[in-house]
Amino acid sequence: MGCVLMNSIDISWPLSAGVTTYKNKGDFKTAATRNWQEHHARESSIYIGSHTGTHVDAPAHFLEQGKTIEHTELSRLIGKAQVIDLGFIETEGITREHLERISLNAPRVLLKTKNSLLDPEADFNPEFIYLEKSGARYLADQGILSVGIDYLGIERLQPAHETHQALLEHDIAIIEGLRLGCVPEGLYTLVCLPLALMGTEAAPARAVLLADQAL
Amino acid sequence: MGCVLMNSIDISWPLSAGVTTYKNKGDFKTAATRNWQEHHARESSIYIGSHTGTHVDAPAHFLEQGKTIEHTELSRLIGKAQVIDLGFIETEGITREHLERISLNAPRVLLKTKNSLLDPEADFNPEFIYLEKSGARYLADQGILSVGIDYLGIERLQPAHETHQALLEHDIAIIEGLRLGCVPEGLYTLVCLPLALMGTEAAPARAVLLADQAL
Repeated sequence: MGCVLMNSIDISWPLSAGVTTYKNKGDFKTAATRNWQEHHARESSIYIGSHTGTHVDAPAHFLEQGKTIEHTELSRLIGKAQVIDLGFIETEGITREHLERISLNAPRVLLKTKNSLLDPEADFNPEFIYLEKSGARYLADQGILSVGIDYLGIERLQPAHETHQALLEHDIAIIEGLRLGCVPEGLYTLVCLPLALMGTEAAPARAVLLADQAL
Repeated sequence: MGCVLMNSIDISWPLSAGVTTYKNKGDFKTAATRNWQEHHARESSIYIGSHTGTHVDAPAHFLEQGKTIEHTELSRLIGKAQVIDLGFIETEGITREHLERISLNAPRVLLKTKNSLLDPEADFNPEFIYLEKSGARYLADQGILSVGIDYLGIERLQPAHETHQALLEHDIAIIEGLRLGCVPEGLYTLVCLPLALMGTEAAPARAVLLADQAL
């Protein structure tokens, strides 16, 4: 999809046959159900994990009584958003200390890290930069509506899923699988639209950043 | 999803287990791959046809040399759009004559018909209101960027797919499977985002209408 800067910036993970999947699960496939040679038309079917590519997690993902994705208000995913460049973090998680230094000016926060440099078709990288629980709690304390990160998970090595817990307990929508390599730090209008799935704990999504003049 | 009018109006077809599918193909299913009882987490897999629910058709659907969905510019699907109320049409297709009476004030056109009254979980209705080839050619002549309709197909009973041909030859993006029952006629900002599929002739999408003040 490249780095074409037009009226909108596509920050979605391209869903190709070789797409990186979480822990190399390989849960993405398309197949032709009608083809040109036989039908003079093309149609396809898609098999996709709910956490494949760009997607939104709802509270039901990690909370026993959590709401499913159709209850995630779209207003959490549409509106003013801040892209924060944390490319200086080499290996560890994003902590409260990292985030406290930054002036938060939007209720939707997109964390740009060196994850965005990874090839979107590479093998899964278990060393990805993640949001550590203290960072998640800090963002929840700030009353944010949603948070996005540029890898297929937002946490790792936290057995009780504390990052997800800290966010989902406040109904904060978690956007995983963004691609922010082409996006300078700053303020944008985010539109992230998950498929209108009923009853699942997450949904694949497409996400763009808009310039105001695009509308 | 109901008729909640907030900052955005969701005009997407809800993807429930019983969702209406084109010609009752039944090409939609979700399954739990992790559940609370065993894993203290929930994950799902999704099987979906590329023409199920709200979706965008690319030229490759019905043109031998047509481009696939990743080449559909998002600018065709984001921006000023006009909802046209054609609820007075009882049975036939939408023709040039129907459309010539209307002042077109936006390059994206959403056709609201009595299809929007149908239950989104009903059996497939082969009598749906469609865009007849003369109407498609008229819209192409006007230079529109995209056209949407409130059923799972935009044409019927036209063996050579003339409606699709007339639109796709001009790279006009076709949005099928909208739900416009709650939307008064008029001008809006459309954001319709298909999944970032690479190489398919269509993609499932989520679509919303925004009020300018939402941004």
